[in-house]
Amino acid sequence: MKIRVGMGFDVHQLVEGRDLWMGGIKLEHSKGLLGHSDADVLLHAVCDALLGAANMRDIGYHFPDTAEFTDGMDSKVILKKTIELITTKGYKLVNIDATICAERPKMNPYIPEMKACMAQVIGCDEDDISIKATTTEKLGFTGREEGISAYAVVLIEKA
Amino acid sequence: MKIRVGMGFDVHQLVEGRDLWMGGIKLEHSKGLLGHSDADVLLHAVCDALLGAANMRDIGYHFPDTAEFTDGMDSKVILKKTIELITTKGYKLVNIDATICAERPKMNPYIPEMKACMAQVIGCDEDDISIKATTTEKLGFTGREEGISAYAVVLIEKA
Amino acid sequence: MKIRVGMGFDVHQLVEGRDLWMGGIKLEHSKGLLGHSDADVLLHAVCDALLGAANMRDIGYHFPDTAEFTDGMDSKVILKKTIELITTKGYKLVNIDATICAERPKMNPYIPEMKACMAQVIGCDEDDISIKATTTEKLGFTGREEGISAYAVVLIEKA
Repeated sequence: MKIRVGMGFDVHQLVEGRDLWMGGIKLEHSKGLLGHSDADVLLHAVCDALLGAANMRDIGYHFPDTAEFTDGMDSKVILKKTIELITTKGYKLVNIDATICAERPKMNPYIPEMKACMAQVIGCDEDDISIKATTTEKLGFTGREEGISAYAVVLIEKA
Repeated sequence: MKIRVGMGFDVHQLVEGRDLWMGGIKLEHSKGLLGHSDADVLLHAVCDALLGAANMRDIGYHFPDTAEFTDGMDSKVILKKTIELITTKGYKLVNIDATICAERPKMNPYIPEMKACMAQVIGCDEDDISIKATTTEKLGFTGREEGISAYAVVLIEKA
Repeated sequence: MKIRVGMGFDVHQLVEGRDLWMGGIKLEHSKGLLGHSDADVLLHAVCDALLGAANMRDIGYHFPDTAEFTDGMDSKVILKKTIELITTKGYKLVNIDATICAERPKMNPYIPEMKACMAQVIGCDEDDISIKATTTEKLGFTGREEGISAYAVVLIEKA
């Protein structure tokens, strides 16, 4: 059995007039994340970690933000295609651990629903997906609510 | 044997009139970290990585900064309880690797003592705990000495 | 077989009048990274992740930026020595996954060459090195092009 690690980091700007998508679900908030797709920063970090672990480039490579097919794209589709990509190389998920950095809104009430959503898209057990949240104590661009960032680490294995 | 990865990231503001706790020990510095507990940013990142690897939510969930029992709490107690939590799920630590981001004070002289302290709290070998330090070259909120951040990754295993 | 995880994070300032080294190669750009060595932020993050996984301190400890022997040092030499260090403790690389955070220049065209260069220095298969790139959407010090940062995670193993 061959095991490999991957990590992802993503950032999007918080702006008015956009929905806030996070972990595949829509959150209640006065602002949303700006992006060519739905700008789901958590799913993007997770996809980058999966692609990195499998050494299959990154989401900017497979889903360029200049392409028509990614315009307004649901990031759950990106996640599903990412899982298909790593499967072609013989890899399957061991576990995901991710952290959302946002001053607001409170992420904790939404986390069980995000995990259930992601587990369904990936086709894995909910116990293999962990999502955490932290503020940056009003410091930096996340602290000033100019944007939201997300980190993810993953293990994948080949039988 | 089942192996899992976790990651943690934490930030606290640097302010006057507080002690600076890091890795379980008190450092000499003109400022300290602001928080409801002792604000030991390194131990918080490590605890979040352990909880994330075990899929047991995060320290904000188990040790809310609005609770009376966490007021002024020694983060070594949080670390000890975190290890107890992951043990209830059958997990034990493989290794920890962490990075402190701070412009000042110099962390390197303190690192052996931090490792010894954390190994005693966790009940593991010192060789299973790595702590590194970096500045952010005067850039960002850590570079301006407005705060200190810490990253941690961990592996845990179930027999 | 014993497997361990490590992570690295590094930052350097972008300034005029310096070459831009990244992943062991020189990129075309109007600015370069400031540092005592060649300031290859990607290789520094990778070396820190390797040293952290092996619990052998960090690059600041082995290659201090106050020493004469590191003045203008090619970071490929630092990477080669880092691999030698972890080898003395019986470890070998499983895989590396890294992310460069830079608004400009576009990193993607250079990534195959960076991977080939790093694989040669390390003496490993190119499939064991993944390099990804992201902007921070004009936010923070990387978004303002004041600096470039890099993250890396690694797995190492002992037979």
